[in-house]
Amino acid sequence: MDRALRVRRILGGRGAVLEGPRQRWDQKPTEDMEKEREALQVWKERVGQELDTVVAFWLQHSHDEEHGGFFTCLGRNGQVYDHLKYVWLQGRQVWMYCRLYRLFERFHRAELLDAAKAGGEFLLHYARVAPPGKKCAFVLTRDGRPVKVQRTIFSECFYTMAMNELWKVTGETRYQNEAVEMMDQIIHWVRVDPTGLGRPQLSGTPATEPMAVPMMLLSLVEQLGEEDEALTSKYAELGDWCAHRILQHIQRDGKAVLENISEDGKELPGCLGRHQNPGHAIEAGWFLLQYAHRKGDAKLQMHIIDKFLLLPFHSGWDPEHGGLFYFQDVDGLCPTQFHDPEFGEWFGYLNREGKVALNIKGGPFKGCFHVPRCLARCEQILEALIHRLGPTSVVSSPADPICGGSK
Amino acid sequence: MDRALRVRRILGGRGAVLEGPRQRWDQKPTEDMEKEREALQVWKERVGQELDTVVAFWLQHSHDEEHGGFFTCLGRNGQVYDHLKYVWLQGRQVWMYCRLYRLFERFHRAELLDAAKAGGEFLLHYARVAPPGKKCAFVLTRDGRPVKVQRTIFSECFYTMAMNELWKVTGETRYQNEAVEMMDQIIHWVRVDPTGLGRPQLSGTPATEPMAVPMMLLSLVEQLGEEDEALTSKYAELGDWCAHRILQHIQRDGKAVLENISEDGKELPGCLGRHQNPGHAIEAGWFLLQYAHRKGDAKLQMHIIDKFLLLPFHSGWDPEHGGLFYFQDVDGLCPTQFHDPEFGEWFGYLNREGKVALNIKGGPFKGCFHVPRCLARCEQILEALIHRLGPTSVVSSPADPICGGSK
Repeated sequence: MDRALRVRRILGGRGAVLEGPRQRWDQKPTEDMEKEREALQVWKERVGQELDTVVAFWLQHSHDEEHGGFFTCLGRNGQVYDHLKYVWLQGRQVWMYCRLYRLFERFHRAELLDAAKAGGEFLLHYARVAPPGKKCAFVLTRDGRPVKVQRTIFSECFYTMAMNELWKVTGETRYQNEAVEMMDQIIHWVRVDPTGLGRPQLSGTPATEPMAVPMMLLSLVEQLGEEDEALTSKYAELGDWCAHRILQHIQRDGKAVLENISEDGKELPGCLGRHQNPGHAIEAGWFLLQYAHRKGDAKLQMHIIDKFLLLPFHSGWDPEHGGLFYFQDVDGLCPTQFHDPEFGEWFGYLNREGKVALNIKGGPFKGCFHVPRCLARCEQILEALIHRLGPTSVVSSPADPICGGSK
Repeated sequence: MDRALRVRRILGGRGAVLEGPRQRWDQKPTEDMEKEREALQVWKERVGQELDTVVAFWLQHSHDEEHGGFFTCLGRNGQVYDHLKYVWLQGRQVWMYCRLYRLFERFHRAELLDAAKAGGEFLLHYARVAPPGKKCAFVLTRDGRPVKVQRTIFSECFYTMAMNELWKVTGETRYQNEAVEMMDQIIHWVRVDPTGLGRPQLSGTPATEPMAVPMMLLSLVEQLGEEDEALTSKYAELGDWCAHRILQHIQRDGKAVLENISEDGKELPGCLGRHQNPGHAIEAGWFLLQYAHRKGDAKLQMHIIDKFLLLPFHSGWDPEHGGLFYFQDVDGLCPTQFHDPEFGEWFGYLNREGKVALNIKGGPFKGCFHVPRCLARCEQILEALIHRLGPTSVVSSPADPICGGSK
């Protein structure tokens, strides 16, 4: 498939706007369309079945009937392996249940709505660390006591998503008030003053923009503005700002999407600056496509497809084993290779099969320490053992390097 | 080898104390001893060569001639892939160089001493975030500006190790003053009042003791007390306290070493409580053996060998591929298996070969969200595409789920 056609297919009905060099969508031969429909139908059924079993899994295993909210640390067979409640996931599950209830006839069931409401009440009671302050915990105990606080906006974002969906499903304005008030607080932290998040200001910390921040805000703009003209209008400028900021993450003359850039849109030095997450870039592309679609901006859509879908898909694909890499360095500085008589020193990080997982020799936790310390120790021990076997001594010295101090 | 003999071999010269059921060490036939010596000699040479190439690697690639201190983010061939300076590793490298210089004739070279001193000066100038406060940064820029601060004691511990070794090598008392003052601060944080570390007190955070804390302190007691009677005496009670605390991490009727326990020595609930790190337990065993050896406590030595060396070695060994697991759950709740038509839902974490790395369905970052959200989205898109192919419509609706909002 050539690029123009591929783009037209992804954009679907907007083919009329993006007229390509070949036939238009509605000019396809009937036979081809019938084949395509059949294939799509098969996929739809398969996806629908998967969705059923996935939702069944969470319905069966994750509900905390005693305290409300959801267990999310579940093992293979649904066994709860930890009772901790991560606030991101509480909010996301409330949102998911509401959305399924609202948009899928077969999930329009009291079971989902009741669990979503119980999750919502759990969040209303316990998510905030020091109400009426808006800062939310990152993780709570099963009964809602805060365990950890993250100095970011994400717990609050998922709280907002949950409350907005609860409002959409129930019509209860208290949920929407929570959503909008929290949204205003998040916007204040991101665009006016971040001190409420509690991050220390250190002279060596670069002024960084993680792509996750404008991405998350853009998805909230979409969420709150959905079927709501007043909020669409209220957050229109914010949406433009988010899209602009995300697009700045296209770096290196359009050849790479970088996760972290400087506040003024430049590449940062070091690992932080070179860090890529292809799946995350594709997710950003999805949010941006929604935005561009809403704007009716076909040129922007093409740009997004090129830079946020095709580019990370191709550069992030593992040519050897398939699949997208979770993380990448844009300069390829940490590929996977096997071990090293060539340059000396030892590798520190192997996968279970004994292959080198990270080919770095040093990093945040491995440096000139463990390997040479161990080798030095071994040499001393061997020396002492040899010494003991000799004719001059069969008694250990007080400074025995085998289990004592060193010589 | 039966256990008694194995223990005697590990303890070496203390065989006279730990008399086993068979022959004593010094009663071995001369022929056997000669064979053993040859084998040890071969190993010693091999280890010595490895140590040479490892040290050569760091000497060649890690020195920052401009600012002092060391680059530790080095790629396979020594290439610096990030200029950040992690304080743990700065302190450890100073310590390592000094120790090699002091204890190994072939490393008694100005090159090592000068680099260690330059690293020491870098730490003296920049490690502390707000002098005269003692709190040290976790990571610094190349020129010494703080980037991140960890709310633990470890940067300060490695700072102390570095300063004490610099004093041992140079005799300059300013280094030793730094070491002892920092040590007193660390002891205060651990045993009197941790508020200076800056960790928030949250009602749901369990009062936890990570084994790393008494381990680290015990190694500092050993470090500072080495060839120093006054400090050996000063820290004797602290050493006893550390050993006692580490030994409390033997849980489950002596069948497991757990990384985190409650302040009063009990198992904690959840993943935190079940967490094991076999290599870390063996390292603790090493520190404890030094302690017990110094005390001349043979019974304690046997206990340590059983619980902190043999037990984690056997329970931590991967029977399939060999090697010690980096992390384990004491109840085996997260072993590595392949994927799952049986229980529904999808796995979230695969290794590069496409095998399941973590068989959990949910955890801190995966819950009822990404998989069902994606499936729901796919189903809607497929529905819309099918609809488009039908005779009733060739024009997309405004709420186009392919790239727009949702129905």
